[in-house]
Amino acid sequence: MKLIRSHFNPTILFLLILVIPLVSRAQVIVLQSDFGTRDSAVTAMKLVILGVDPKIQILDNTHDIEPFKIYEGAYRLYQSAPFAAPGTVYVSVVDPGVGSNRLSVVAKDSRGVYYVTPDNGTLSFIEKEVGISEVRVIDESKLRRPGSENSHTFHGRDIYAYVGGLLASQKIAFSEVGTSLDPSALERFEIPNAQISNDKLILSGLVEIHDIRYGNVWTNIPEDLVREFGVKENATVTIRILNDGKLYKRFQLPFLRSFAAAKKHQGGKLIYMNSLGKLACSKLLGNLAKSERIGFGPRWTVEITK
Amino acid sequence: MKLIRSHFNPTILFLLILVIPLVSRAQVIVLQSDFGTRDSAVTAMKLVILGVDPKIQILDNTHDIEPFKIYEGAYRLYQSAPFAAPGTVYVSVVDPGVGSNRLSVVAKDSRGVYYVTPDNGTLSFIEKEVGISEVRVIDESKLRRPGSENSHTFHGRDIYAYVGGLLASQKIAFSEVGTSLDPSALERFEIPNAQISNDKLILSGLVEIHDIRYGNVWTNIPEDLVREFGVKENATVTIRILNDGKLYKRFQLPFLRSFAAAKKHQGGKLIYMNSLGKLACSKLLGNLAKSERIGFGPRWTVEITK
Amino acid sequence: MKLIRSHFNPTILFLLILVIPLVSRAQVIVLQSDFGTRDSAVTAMKLVILGVDPKIQILDNTHDIEPFKIYEGAYRLYQSAPFAAPGTVYVSVVDPGVGSNRLSVVAKDSRGVYYVTPDNGTLSFIEKEVGISEVRVIDESKLRRPGSENSHTFHGRDIYAYVGGLLASQKIAFSEVGTSLDPSALERFEIPNAQISNDKLILSGLVEIHDIRYGNVWTNIPEDLVREFGVKENATVTIRILNDGKLYKRFQLPFLRSFAAAKKHQGGKLIYMNSLGKLACSKLLGNLAKSERIGFGPRWTVEITK
Repeated sequence: MKLIRSHFNPTILFLLILVIPLVSRAQVIVLQSDFGTRDSAVTAMKLVILGVDPKIQILDNTHDIEPFKIYEGAYRLYQSAPFAAPGTVYVSVVDPGVGSNRLSVVAKDSRGVYYVTPDNGTLSFIEKEVGISEVRVIDESKLRRPGSENSHTFHGRDIYAYVGGLLASQKIAFSEVGTSLDPSALERFEIPNAQISNDKLILSGLVEIHDIRYGNVWTNIPEDLVREFGVKENATVTIRILNDGKLYKRFQLPFLRSFAAAKKHQGGKLIYMNSLGKLACSKLLGNLAKSERIGFGPRWTVEITK
Repeated sequence: MKLIRSHFNPTILFLLILVIPLVSRAQVIVLQSDFGTRDSAVTAMKLVILGVDPKIQILDNTHDIEPFKIYEGAYRLYQSAPFAAPGTVYVSVVDPGVGSNRLSVVAKDSRGVYYVTPDNGTLSFIEKEVGISEVRVIDESKLRRPGSENSHTFHGRDIYAYVGGLLASQKIAFSEVGTSLDPSALERFEIPNAQISNDKLILSGLVEIHDIRYGNVWTNIPEDLVREFGVKENATVTIRILNDGKLYKRFQLPFLRSFAAAKKHQGGKLIYMNSLGKLACSKLLGNLAKSERIGFGPRWTVEITK
Repeated sequence: MKLIRSHFNPTILFLLILVIPLVSRAQVIVLQSDFGTRDSAVTAMKLVILGVDPKIQILDNTHDIEPFKIYEGAYRLYQSAPFAAPGTVYVSVVDPGVGSNRLSVVAKDSRGVYYVTPDNGTLSFIEKEVGISEVRVIDESKLRRPGSENSHTFHGRDIYAYVGGLLASQKIAFSEVGTSLDPSALERFEIPNAQISNDKLILSGLVEIHDIRYGNVWTNIPEDLVREFGVKENATVTIRILNDGKLYKRFQLPFLRSFAAAKKHQGGKLIYMNSLGKLACSKLLGNLAKSERIGFGPRWTVEITK
C-alpha cells in the first residue's frame, strides 16, 4: 500500500486531470464529395469514421460538387482549408477513376492540414495556393475498412473515410499511411497565373470559379497585383471577359470596397476583392454569371485595362 | 510533501471529477445563411468557430434562405429557436448590406438564447414572438478574426462566426461584445397581429410563411384566437385568401386535428393548428401553395368566417 | 478523515479516471426525414435531442426523401445502417399518417441498431436485409416532449426526436419505451427475392433503387446469386428491363469489376457489383436512369440471360 501511494500521489493525479484535456487534440474531419445528400452514401462514410473513433467531429465541405468535376472539388478545398486548424483532416472523394490504377494518397499541406483523396488533380489548387509539403501513397491492401476486401466501387467509404478516421484519431501516424511520394509527382491540372503584360497596360487572369448562390464571377487576380497595376478604390476600369480567347462580354465597372457602395453606381455592377483576396465581378442583388451566361475554368479569361 | 497532500487531498479531487462535467456548459451554435451548401463558404465559418473552440457543437438551421431575403431568415430563426436551450448561440447571416454602415449586433432573447446578426430586420420575428431583452453592438474593430482586417465582403466568416465562437465558448461575456443598444432601436419590419373584427364576424391574419416541402400555408393566427372566435374541431369555415387586399382564392374547409382526419373529407383540403400553434391550410398529400399559387409575406392575408 | 482516505484512495481514483471514458458509450443519432433542409423543422428536432443530452452526436442520413415516399425512406435506412455501430439510434420521420392511429415504434435490429419511426413500412428493408429482433410500441402519452401535449402535426419533433434522445443518452432503457410488439406485426411492403429460374436460364430481380447522383440502376440481385448463375468478370450478358412485366429496354452489357474498366468497352455501359454487394447497371460518366428513363420500385424488374 505504501508503494502504491508513492506512485499515485494526489499531486500527480491532479496534474494529469489538468493536462489530459490540453493534450487531447481536437479531431476534426471535413468531408467533400460529388455524392449529393439525397441518399445515404455520405452517412455511410461518416459511420465508418465514427466506427474508428466516435469522438471525431465531422464537417461537410460540400457534397454538391457536379458529378465527376475534379476541378470544382479542387477549388472547394482551397476555399475553406486555409481556415482549418493544423491537424484537420480533409477527405475528398470526387473519384471518376475508382477501380482504375489511379493512386490513393494522403497529402500534408504547408500549414499542417491533411487531405485524403484519389490522386487525380483534386490537390491542384491546394498545391498552388497553400503548398504541399509531403505526400504518402495509401497502402490499400492494409488500410481499408475490415470486410471491404471485395468492394471495388465505393473507396470513399471503404478506404478514404476509414484512413481519414485513423489519421484524425491518431491511431496511425502520417508516416504509417504508406510509402512517400514526391509532391511534384501528383496529378494536377494547369492553373495559369494572373499577370500584368503589354507594357503594363493589361492585367489579365482566369475566371477561376463562381460564388454560386450570388452569381459573382471570381478571378485568380490577387490583391497585390491589382495594387501594382494601380487600380484605386472607386476608379472605373474596363473589364473584358473572353471565352477561348475571344471577346465575350465587355463592362466598364467601378472598383468598390463592398457591394453596399455599388448602390450609388448605375446598374449596380462592380468589381471588388472577394473573400479569398482576389478580384471579382458582381451585380448588386443580382446574379451576374447567370444573367450574362459567364462560365468558369481554363477557357474563361479576363483582361482589365484602365 | 505534507503541505501538498493537505491541499490536494483525494476527497477534493473526487468531487472535482464529479463536478467538472456538470459545470461545463454545452456549447451549441446554430448557423443560418443564404449561402447555400454548394460551395464551402459555410465550412469556412465553421472552421473559424472550431478555431476559437473545437468543442463547440455546430448545427445548421438552414443555408437555403433565398439570397438576400431577410424576412425568410427572420422567420426561420423563430421556427427553431423556441426549442433551443438557454445559452445557445445563433449566428444568422443574410446580409445584403455587408460593407455598408448597418450595425452588427448580438441580441439576447427572453429565454436566454443569443443571436449574432447584422441589424437589418433579421430579428423581427424573434422580437415579436419571443421577446428581446438585451442588445449589444459588436465592436468590429476589436472582435474580428485575426488577419481579416482587410476583408470587407464576408463578415459571416470574419465577424459573425468569430464572435459567435467567442460567446459560445465563454471566452468573452455578453457584456464584452460592445456597447448596449435599446432593443427598440433594432431594424425591423412590421408584422401585423391577427385579429377578430367586424362585430366578431371575421377572423383575419397574415400568410406568414409556407411549410415549403409540403406546400402548407401557415398563417399568424394563434390557437387562442381560433378558440375565442369559436371554431370547433370538425366544423367547416370559409377561408378567403387575399393578395394586396383583393380576393384571390376562397375555400370551404374543415378544421381538423391532423392531416389523417382529412381522408374522410372531399378533396383532402383542411385547416389545422401547425407545429408552432398557429392556423394553417393544407392539401392532404398535395402541395396547396404550389397548386393554388399562393404566396406569403405582408401582401398575403386571410379572412375566416363561420 | 482517516475514513474518507480509505474510501477514496488514489489508486481507485486513478482507475476511475482511466475507466470512465471507456464505459461512457458514444451517443450517435442518425436523423432521416422528408422535411428537406430549406426550413428549420430538422433543426427543431436536433434542438429537442440536444435538450435531452447535449453530448449526443447527430448525423443526417438524408432529409431529401420525396415527401410521403415511405419506400425511399425504408431503402435509405438500409443503405447506411449496416455501417453503424451497435447502439446507434436512427430517427426516421416519413410520416404521411401523422395524427392517425398508426403506431409509433422503436425497433432493434439484429446488429443492435435502434430505429424510432412511425410503423408504416419504413422498416421493410431493414427487416428483410438485416433482421429485426425486438420491437416496442412508444407510449406516446408519457414519452413526448414536455409541453407538446396539444401538438398533433409534428411528431418528428415532439415524439420521435425526444424518444431518440432519451434512448441514445440511456435516460431510458429500450424496455421502458412501451409494450413489446411481435416484429412480424410491423407494417411492411413486399420486397420480392431475386431468383434463378426457367431451368437456370434466367436470373431475375427488382430495380430496387437508383444511385441518384450518377443515375446508376441498382437491382436486388446479390453477389452470390450472380456467381451461382455463372456470370464471370468481363463476360457479356443480356439484361432486359421490364416495366409492369413488359419489356422496356434491352442491353448487352459487360460484367466489370469497376467503372474504370468500362473505358475499353463500347458505349461505356456496364453491369457491376454496387457498394451494397448487389448487381447494378451504369453508364460511365453518364446518367443511365435519366437518359433511358428507367424507374425503380415494385413495378420495375430485370431479367438477365447469358
